[in-house]
Amino acid sequence: MRLYDFLPSGNGYKVRLILHQTETPFTWVNVDILDGATRAPAFLAKNPNGRIPLLELDDGRLLAESNAILYYLAQGTPLLPRDPYLAAQIMQWMFFEQYSHERFVAVARFICEFSAPGDPRHEELSGLRENGHAALRVMETHLSENRFFVGDTYSIADIALYAYTHVADEGGFDLSPYDNIRKWLSRVSRQDRHIPITKNDF
Amino acid sequence: MRLYDFLPSGNGYKVRLILHQTETPFTWVNVDILDGATRAPAFLAKNPNGRIPLLELDDGRLLAESNAILYYLAQGTPLLPRDPYLAAQIMQWMFFEQYSHERFVAVARFICEFSAPGDPRHEELSGLRENGHAALRVMETHLSENRFFVGDTYSIADIALYAYTHVADEGGFDLSPYDNIRKWLSRVSRQDRHIPITKNDF
Repeated sequence: MRLYDFLPSGNGYKVRLILHQTETPFTWVNVDILDGATRAPAFLAKNPNGRIPLLELDDGRLLAESNAILYYLAQGTPLLPRDPYLAAQIMQWMFFEQYSHERFVAVARFICEFSAPGDPRHEELSGLRENGHAALRVMETHLSENRFFVGDTYSIADIALYAYTHVADEGGFDLSPYDNIRKWLSRVSRQDRHIPITKNDF
Repeated sequence: MRLYDFLPSGNGYKVRLILHQTETPFTWVNVDILDGATRAPAFLAKNPNGRIPLLELDDGRLLAESNAILYYLAQGTPLLPRDPYLAAQIMQWMFFEQYSHERFVAVARFICEFSAPGDPRHEELSGLRENGHAALRVMETHLSENRFFVGDTYSIADIALYAYTHVADEGGFDLSPYDNIRKWLSRVSRQDRHIPITKNDF
């Protein structure tokens, strides 16, 4: 398999993490999103939506959207329960992640990391943080009664939500009030074959 | 089953449509999102993220996120292929729908339908339409070579994308340049047991 990816991306990290944890060999391909590489015709031919991560299977078939890739790679592993309701709950939290979390928490981090201090995008930060904290509160409440997001075991729902939550501070989110989230982050980071987002020797 | 829903919602319509097409009996429960009903303590106790649609199973178990509900209800039906790659492609398009389509196309429609003409939210419309058209172009390209989104058959990926695309004009999107999308909309609307978003006699 080939993974088209950008190292600072939390969405890309989700896929690197599951590939490592499932001991799946892959070739890592750098796509510099800051340099317009996802808008290049060769990349758009592979993913017309122009986003990383993108997984290319050995037979050339392609799969986009980080959480869809997690779903594909988790099939037949303990990371995706077979029970239909539990599997649907995994989906629920992965859609929550993309719709109510990533687009605020990840975007705030992106602006902080990659925009110059005077960039007008900094004006978006207070709104992004307000919405991001709303998502963090939903997580905190859920984790007050659950060790992991679904079915009391580590799953792709945890991988999806861990990716940007554990680096939320880089977007200006103070996680100190979120006791349950911090304990869960620690629990996730202690899973077998965990790797940090900074691992770059693929 | 009980469906907590708001009739104008395209996300709610996805669930009404699959329930009708799979001939699944359900009780419809009105939740007036314009009147703050999704922020009421009784509703937040069921869905801490405060959104409809929300499905309550006969045994009281709950499921949120429209596309997760589609995934749950489609299991074991032709609307969700068993093949792992095809199923993952369904997920890909459903995540595309929430991240790259709904938050622009649906939000523009919401502002047009429910904000007074002088409301400051109208300033968001040009940006929402620019991003919405980018999503529509991705769909148009895909549909130039495919009758349906995944595997040449009608699936929950089509239901998810149909919901807000077929009413995109209500958000100020002119679909006349999108020949393939218009043909696909017609194809979806001709499926067995199709219902319009305006059906309200549940």
